[in-house]
Amino acid sequence: MPFSLSSPLDMHIHFREGDMLKLVAPLSAKTFAGGVIMPNLVPPVDHISRLIIYEEEINKAIIGHGFQPYMALFMRSYTEEELAPIKDRIIGIKLYPAGVTTHSDQGIKRIEDINRTLAIMQDIDIPLLVHGETTGFVMDREREFISIYERLARQFPRLTIIMEHITTKEAVDMLDRYENLHATVTLQHLIITLDDVVGGLLAPHLFCKPIAKRPEDRAALLHIALKAHPKLMFGSDSAPHPVSKKECCGCAAGVFTAPIALQMLVELFEDHDALENLQAFVSDNAKRIYEITPPEKTVVFEKTGDVIPDKYGDVVPIYPGRKLAWNVKVEGEIW
Amino acid sequence: MPFSLSSPLDMHIHFREGDMLKLVAPLSAKTFAGGVIMPNLVPPVDHISRLIIYEEEINKAIIGHGFQPYMALFMRSYTEEELAPIKDRIIGIKLYPAGVTTHSDQGIKRIEDINRTLAIMQDIDIPLLVHGETTGFVMDREREFISIYERLARQFPRLTIIMEHITTKEAVDMLDRYENLHATVTLQHLIITLDDVVGGLLAPHLFCKPIAKRPEDRAALLHIALKAHPKLMFGSDSAPHPVSKKECCGCAAGVFTAPIALQMLVELFEDHDALENLQAFVSDNAKRIYEITPPEKTVVFEKTGDVIPDKYGDVVPIYPGRKLAWNVKVEGEIW
Repeated sequence: MPFSLSSPLDMHIHFREGDMLKLVAPLSAKTFAGGVIMPNLVPPVDHISRLIIYEEEINKAIIGHGFQPYMALFMRSYTEEELAPIKDRIIGIKLYPAGVTTHSDQGIKRIEDINRTLAIMQDIDIPLLVHGETTGFVMDREREFISIYERLARQFPRLTIIMEHITTKEAVDMLDRYENLHATVTLQHLIITLDDVVGGLLAPHLFCKPIAKRPEDRAALLHIALKAHPKLMFGSDSAPHPVSKKECCGCAAGVFTAPIALQMLVELFEDHDALENLQAFVSDNAKRIYEITPPEKTVVFEKTGDVIPDKYGDVVPIYPGRKLAWNVKVEGEIW
Repeated sequence: MPFSLSSPLDMHIHFREGDMLKLVAPLSAKTFAGGVIMPNLVPPVDHISRLIIYEEEINKAIIGHGFQPYMALFMRSYTEEELAPIKDRIIGIKLYPAGVTTHSDQGIKRIEDINRTLAIMQDIDIPLLVHGETTGFVMDREREFISIYERLARQFPRLTIIMEHITTKEAVDMLDRYENLHATVTLQHLIITLDDVVGGLLAPHLFCKPIAKRPEDRAALLHIALKAHPKLMFGSDSAPHPVSKKECCGCAAGVFTAPIALQMLVELFEDHDALENLQAFVSDNAKRIYEITPPEKTVVFEKTGDVIPDKYGDVVPIYPGRKLAWNVKVEGEIW
């Protein structure tokens, strides 16, 4: 029996630039109807001119795919004069604390420094997207950030705040505590724990930030994903690196899932008898939270069983060589 | 001011076989007066004939270095007839739970299966060396094994038990709780935490089993090492792998420290104003616990500052390129 999804969305995706963008953007655009494009480039996407050029580069790469890139600005102190004209071109502003992940050097050192910007965002209705980690011990970084989420949620009660790629039970618990807090979760954090990264052989292709946590954290994330908690959205955080940056002596963080994320989600939700909730998790929740209307796209899944390729270009995906239970097909496409 | 150590010992060392042994054994033998040679080869060292051949191979590789290899047998069920004639050739029997680390497939599946062997070891005074990890979640494996240590310590009160390469506060606490429990600790577990492995870029050359734990665990280990707790011994667990097995898509566990372990220990103990305790930590405690008399060897350290090589043969050491505060020189050696 085929299964279908309507306009699936990836609410956290790294497209990079240049050749890497040309490689990976179409892989997302093929099956997703839209996605939130992360702005942590070098230099970061923190001016309207840079944003427009970047958006054009993306649109050129995905032409014909019916994919809407939802652009995010990189957080710095912005004036109202800067934000007002750009407001309708962006889906939100992404806050990176300085030094917590790939290309976050230009991030925020003290949250207090952007209070004025956050107030403007609240007033003119621009969502805040947050990489919520401190620079503490790797297993505690998200937990330590929880108090910052609480302060932001209280101080800016009308600001829409997205806790990006949550990985802990503590972050899950926040969703029901503050009305203005929402979250994205990745595919990998629904299926792996730290065990899969360092418990057997070291697995650089499962290494990402935030690092996968404990079994009880994964269980909490999976629980709210499978029931499509109304404040939770799928965001792959798919982050391509060339293999030379992953299999080396100091490997970059990032799991590449974009081309097979939907297929694996269908399998995961089917395994847990929750297929009826996948539409909300990968599309409807995001449409409601962000008030967006993505391109219409019907993605059909059939049980014929592809194998995950060893590489896409120079990028190794999650689980190369693993058999997929479901193949994907976009309605109207010729195969 | 030069500093010297008398007959330093590495009470947990992997020499491997063949070409790797020829490369790494002399690097240990140069500065150490002896070491406990781990038996997890393929096939394991679990027969007297295999042990004798392996010991000969080692002795050939370290000729002229004044280094005593203390041989350990790989645990299986042994009869008294097997152990009696081999007793004087071995320092102990190493217990690997099946599947917990490199080449442990032939390890013990149920501890109860070796009760008879443990009783014999207790009677004829053969120490038990233990890789104390379960197959649980990677950060909990040693903690989960604590109850097994407790059972062994109670059930065999006259058996000398060594908790190998301890990594947690909980294991540290066991030392003062059971008279017959002792421990080794590595260099890396005194200086790194999980943060150094997965907190920044992924660091395969700091990846080992047991995995480095939390800051409070490292603090507890460092505390008892610096005061040279009488039941604690240095055991590097130096474990060489060719670079192709470390910088790849599924990297082997093991940190290679043997050639610079002593120099780094001198620096660590000096930094903490505890140099006077290093002799006990790297030699005297082991001599008393195991009742051994290693070859006499005086190792002199001078502050001239070498740099850690990028590789020894095909093996990348801990911290390649880092400046060492102390150089090492063996008395009587010509430089």
